[in-house]
Amino acid sequence: MRILITGGSGFLGALLARTLLQHGQLGGGPVNELVLADLQPPPDDLLADGRVRALTGALIAQCVGLRGESFDAVFHLAGALSAECEADFDLGMRSNLDSTRALLEAVRAAGNVPRFVFASSLAVYGSDPGLPLPQIIREDTLPTPQSSYGVQKFICEQLVADYTRKGFVDGRSARLVTVVVRPGKPSGAASSFLSGIMREPLKGEFAVCPVPPETKVALASPARTIAGLIAVAEASRDALGGRIAVNLPALTVSVSEMLDALESAAGTQARALVLLQPDAEITRIVGGWPAVFDNTRAARLGLEPDPDFLSILRAYQADHA
Amino acid sequence: MRILITGGSGFLGALLARTLLQHGQLGGGPVNELVLADLQPPPDDLLADGRVRALTGALIAQCVGLRGESFDAVFHLAGALSAECEADFDLGMRSNLDSTRALLEAVRAAGNVPRFVFASSLAVYGSDPGLPLPQIIREDTLPTPQSSYGVQKFICEQLVADYTRKGFVDGRSARLVTVVVRPGKPSGAASSFLSGIMREPLKGEFAVCPVPPETKVALASPARTIAGLIAVAEASRDALGGRIAVNLPALTVSVSEMLDALESAAGTQARALVLLQPDAEITRIVGGWPAVFDNTRAARLGLEPDPDFLSILRAYQADHA
Repeated sequence: MRILITGGSGFLGALLARTLLQHGQLGGGPVNELVLADLQPPPDDLLADGRVRALTGALIAQCVGLRGESFDAVFHLAGALSAECEADFDLGMRSNLDSTRALLEAVRAAGNVPRFVFASSLAVYGSDPGLPLPQIIREDTLPTPQSSYGVQKFICEQLVADYTRKGFVDGRSARLVTVVVRPGKPSGAASSFLSGIMREPLKGEFAVCPVPPETKVALASPARTIAGLIAVAEASRDALGGRIAVNLPALTVSVSEMLDALESAAGTQARALVLLQPDAEITRIVGGWPAVFDNTRAARLGLEPDPDFLSILRAYQADHA
Repeated sequence: MRILITGGSGFLGALLARTLLQHGQLGGGPVNELVLADLQPPPDDLLADGRVRALTGALIAQCVGLRGESFDAVFHLAGALSAECEADFDLGMRSNLDSTRALLEAVRAAGNVPRFVFASSLAVYGSDPGLPLPQIIREDTLPTPQSSYGVQKFICEQLVADYTRKGFVDGRSARLVTVVVRPGKPSGAASSFLSGIMREPLKGEFAVCPVPPETKVALASPARTIAGLIAVAEASRDALGGRIAVNLPALTVSVSEMLDALESAAGTQARALVLLQPDAEITRIVGGWPAVFDNTRAARLGLEPDPDFLSILRAYQADHA
């Protein structure tokens, strides 16, 4: 199989790449070539694998060349992040909407109707001034996104559904919940702090929490997120149950429960490194995302949320000891 | 006030223009200039009005010039029709999605945040393989469009909502139901026959009905449709209740009830001119649209559905006697 991962050098993209290389297969087909498209080159461990090829540059420009290539599966993870899109509307439209459309057109031009997994986001949900969100979110809940990022993701879901209906791709959208704990530096995601308030204190560094501690959030570990993307890629159309996006399973916790887990894992001194400094814009964006999801549809694909936050934190500690 | 109507030479666009010129005002402001943008020049009666200016050509090309103009209100009615978009995917994406985006960008560039009314459609609704439609459609029902036209309309609604949230336009989307009875020739809309099976027999001509007579449809007269567009344009943000699209009120009838009304209005010989010749594709598209709507939100704007189909037919006869 030839597989394309856009955003393939990012945290999730690289982790997906490593997982696919380690499994050696996707849906029973051998992983022969893995193309990682990204603004940045892939990490060295991936470049060292003979099955990996790097495509470095802006996706929208690369899509012209991609028209000549046919892949068996495409994971489309590339895109601008939520806070970036809110700060720069045109950047978001270009990086999220135009790039996705260019990629869909490239895949359509190849003509072999591959599996196409679009990484959408829980950010499609938001509370419209005239329509408060229900307590529990299901896939038939109407998304009324309250950020440009969420709007762009929701629009791309519609495109993926229609390209699929037309037989141009075999598409499916998976809505990712906030992935924690991410290693590395803070990102342009409004939810970036949810990793930071764990990662920095574990290194003995200060971190800012810009939302009230009672804020509830929907989270998944990196491992469960990757498992979700692969399960959605491998699922039959029947198992998916239609073309609407699948909400990946979410663990619901409050920020203060996350801090309790930090204290359990690393002591009161670690917790004391988290500074509560509410930020109105981040609180508006993150607080507007729903926190409680009906995970039934994901469960039918064999996907379960992480059991508790402490297990997420302990896995992060084990991976980054 | 300076008002722009895209699709201003079409049936609805010209009717809206005539209505605004006749009222002489919109939301209390005098109608000083009415710009009608369309592929075709406006009808002579409109051109004869000193307040009317015609912009003839493709909208997407005109949007460059429109960037320098500021309007107080924009009615965006232009676009490719449902059957056209299903037959030519790229045409639909260009005429519906790209043109709407170019228009929103032109209006954003002018910088005066005008009222922007987007004419969406009940075609945003459809029964996804995994999610049958509920019996009664409300604005919080998740649209899962089953045509490219419906997808494009729904995407444009999302753009209008986000351009509004960002303060680029004061946008609102009104979902039109099928407008009957349209005069003139058949159009590229999958629903075109719903006018044809009345209009042609009234002239003593044959007409083909491509769906089973028990098919239920959601209809509105031209007059009620124009009243809906104007009410949505004039409504305050509070009265609209949020940024999600408003479903204009719909009269639900079966095709056989329409034929009964034709017989009442024009006799058995008129009804006999309607040939039942089911077409699978038209039946799939039109049969996939919901027929029963909860009209509560429209009613709060003072809008009511037509009382019955015979009154729609009699009004058409009076207008085209």
